[in-house]
Amino acid sequence: MSKLRRRGAAGLLDMVADRASRLPQHERRDFLKRGLALAGAAVAGPAIGANGSESDYLPPDVPPWTRSLGRGVVTRPYGSPSDFEANVIRRTVPWLTASNISSISFTPLPELQGIITPNGLVFERYHAGVPEISPDQHRLMIHGLVERPIVFTMDDLMRFPSVSVIRFIECPANGGMEWRGAQMEALQFTHGMLSCCEWTGVPLSVLLEEVGLKKGAAWILAEGADGSAMTRSIPLEKALDDTLVVYAQNGERLRPEQGYPLRLLNPGWEGNTSVKWLRRLEVGDQPWYQREETSKYTDLMEDGRARKFTFVQETNSVITFPCPEKPVTAKGRYEVEGLAWSGRGRIRRVDVSFDGGVNWQQARLKGLVLPKALTRFSYMWDWDGGPALLQSRAIDETGYVQPTLTQLRDQRGVESIYHKNAIHTWRVAESGEVTNVQID
Amino acid sequence: MSKLRRRGAAGLLDMVADRASRLPQHERRDFLKRGLALAGAAVAGPAIGANGSESDYLPPDVPPWTRSLGRGVVTRPYGSPSDFEANVIRRTVPWLTASNISSISFTPLPELQGIITPNGLVFERYHAGVPEISPDQHRLMIHGLVERPIVFTMDDLMRFPSVSVIRFIECPANGGMEWRGAQMEALQFTHGMLSCCEWTGVPLSVLLEEVGLKKGAAWILAEGADGSAMTRSIPLEKALDDTLVVYAQNGERLRPEQGYPLRLLNPGWEGNTSVKWLRRLEVGDQPWYQREETSKYTDLMEDGRARKFTFVQETNSVITFPCPEKPVTAKGRYEVEGLAWSGRGRIRRVDVSFDGGVNWQQARLKGLVLPKALTRFSYMWDWDGGPALLQSRAIDETGYVQPTLTQLRDQRGVESIYHKNAIHTWRVAESGEVTNVQID
Repeated sequence: MSKLRRRGAAGLLDMVADRASRLPQHERRDFLKRGLALAGAAVAGPAIGANGSESDYLPPDVPPWTRSLGRGVVTRPYGSPSDFEANVIRRTVPWLTASNISSISFTPLPELQGIITPNGLVFERYHAGVPEISPDQHRLMIHGLVERPIVFTMDDLMRFPSVSVIRFIECPANGGMEWRGAQMEALQFTHGMLSCCEWTGVPLSVLLEEVGLKKGAAWILAEGADGSAMTRSIPLEKALDDTLVVYAQNGERLRPEQGYPLRLLNPGWEGNTSVKWLRRLEVGDQPWYQREETSKYTDLMEDGRARKFTFVQETNSVITFPCPEKPVTAKGRYEVEGLAWSGRGRIRRVDVSFDGGVNWQQARLKGLVLPKALTRFSYMWDWDGGPALLQSRAIDETGYVQPTLTQLRDQRGVESIYHKNAIHTWRVAESGEVTNVQID
Repeated sequence: MSKLRRRGAAGLLDMVADRASRLPQHERRDFLKRGLALAGAAVAGPAIGANGSESDYLPPDVPPWTRSLGRGVVTRPYGSPSDFEANVIRRTVPWLTASNISSISFTPLPELQGIITPNGLVFERYHAGVPEISPDQHRLMIHGLVERPIVFTMDDLMRFPSVSVIRFIECPANGGMEWRGAQMEALQFTHGMLSCCEWTGVPLSVLLEEVGLKKGAAWILAEGADGSAMTRSIPLEKALDDTLVVYAQNGERLRPEQGYPLRLLNPGWEGNTSVKWLRRLEVGDQPWYQREETSKYTDLMEDGRARKFTFVQETNSVITFPCPEKPVTAKGRYEVEGLAWSGRGRIRRVDVSFDGGVNWQQARLKGLVLPKALTRFSYMWDWDGGPALLQSRAIDETGYVQPTLTQLRDQRGVESIYHKNAIHTWRVAESGEVTNVQID
């Protein structure tokens, strides 16, 4: 701070006053408070401490972290967030499920930046808790309508050429509590069964070539090694397209909660088809109609029938700032931000509305725009301090337009749990508080 | 495993034998061992346990994780890797520095996939240990040759429109122990001061527009809030180009080791110019010639003079498989993989050699190829079991070709610590063991 000190207290105060005069009223107060606090630090002068060490010559309100040594290198061989970020965690909704063994936790979307979800915050969904699987003992068997059934070790699988892709995973029940009405007063709970990572693994098409498909092969049953032995039927067409057998996320091996040591990844499809702790792939000529694709993960319609095998996570979006956890604080200019995603491919465009869908403005897509990945959008908004109804509407590269709630209910009723991708509304009050509302 | 069980033990053994007959000799042995182990599991039949629970009807060698419930949801609100991955950690070299307060830890590159480095494994470099800084108390002051000096709070900075980019950070001392001869028997130590994350922050150009540059402004001094108050001089041209003031990495707030709550990011430049725990930016008309840009972070030449302000991390690459930590195990086909990066922009091409640079083949770039980011390359190699000298040579979009060790030493001698980007050689022995060697 040499020049600052040379300038002296009077110069510094001039500087602060000069700056403050250019600020709007509400910012000026804050700035002066901050500026004067700093001026206080600069004019206090050296204070010699009890032990006369060099750092004691610093002004007494130089913060302690500048006056001391921190912890040494590899104190944490595997790092963790700052203690000041203790609030940025996955959370669950206690009343949502009967136990925490078959339950869900939510990614803290309001706290996240960019498109990558750090591994420690990827949402969780279990049917029998998190197994602790030894990678040395784990096996993947591929059998059924194949020429050469094979049991793979992890070493076998890692010997195949790998691919890495950034893709979202979303539970199809994301937003499921909102079919009938706004229920959750937090973005973490309305949309937090959603994460996006760089995944590395082997294309399933490569493994299927290795085993050789027999005539009639049309479906694949994927089975997990956890206590629930979770099973889903996958059409062969998807398996040969972009399905991966995955062992890494964001550079490192899968986390236990995400299927360590091996999972399936069906990009853009219902999260639970990306079977975790994957131990078996059976090739057959028809789907298996297992529990998790009949009594669960089907969409009950108004007439009592159910849509089944509705695999694709349709185009969706949500505004992540402002949101209930991150209100606006004073009128002025804000960067309204949000996330958009489509199970069919790239996001082409996102529009935002501040009056509940009457008028729309095109948002800017920022950063990477990758297929079947979270895509961040942005719009500079001058908030006049009045009430507002914020919405976002995503359009993907296939031309699919995210529906209004009315459009979705007209087609699907309100009996379903899954695939609620309607335009979402945040109400901003004059106080800046943000609440979750539903409008037609 | 219904179809497998129906097929019975005899059918399963036929299946295993059929598959084994198609494998090369060395793989066949392994496969039969594995296959028969599984067959053993399938024919053992149900065994009723002491308490007669349902899971006890499973064959006794069905693994315990399938026979039991795992831990519940949000047992770890912020997740951590599997205990089986306890070996995937940052490591230090005890003799490299006098203490662990001013020292380095290395990213475990051999264990990583894709291009993202997970936050817990990003390499560390401190000059006075890791400070624990309160984001509420932290300030960034921008002053000097500016119209309106400002002291920003973290809230102020987060109110600006943000950008997110995937960029590498490399310590310029990466490989510095290798100038005179091969010294480190591990990829983690030859190249591990290297990581790549998605960073989010505010362009410094935006903040400089906010304060208004005065005539004569040409350099910026960045200062850290840690006990070392680390300082580096940055040319204004870079600051106005792509320098960011960063508060998040891989979606979440910066880790304490990477500068929480605020750091500079000079993409593609010497890591230590990306000053961590950033508290002050002073605009001036010339560089400051601080300690970390004179006695350190300059390149001593043979004639006793030193190159200074050699900011750019030049084009570099290394083969990450095989490597000392990940040898080859038996002759056959392998995916040779590696990382390439350039401080000047995108990687255009990577060549690989298996005979110490006599013959070169073009590798495939896989995944995202982003400017100033790690880029992964791949080449399918049929190892005949003989000795081999593996090398990679990267070329970036400016046409810069990674030099040989001889070319680099001809220009720079062997007195330097920094900017060793020569072509690296791994020797593969007949045993499959990989060692670090230097050849002309």
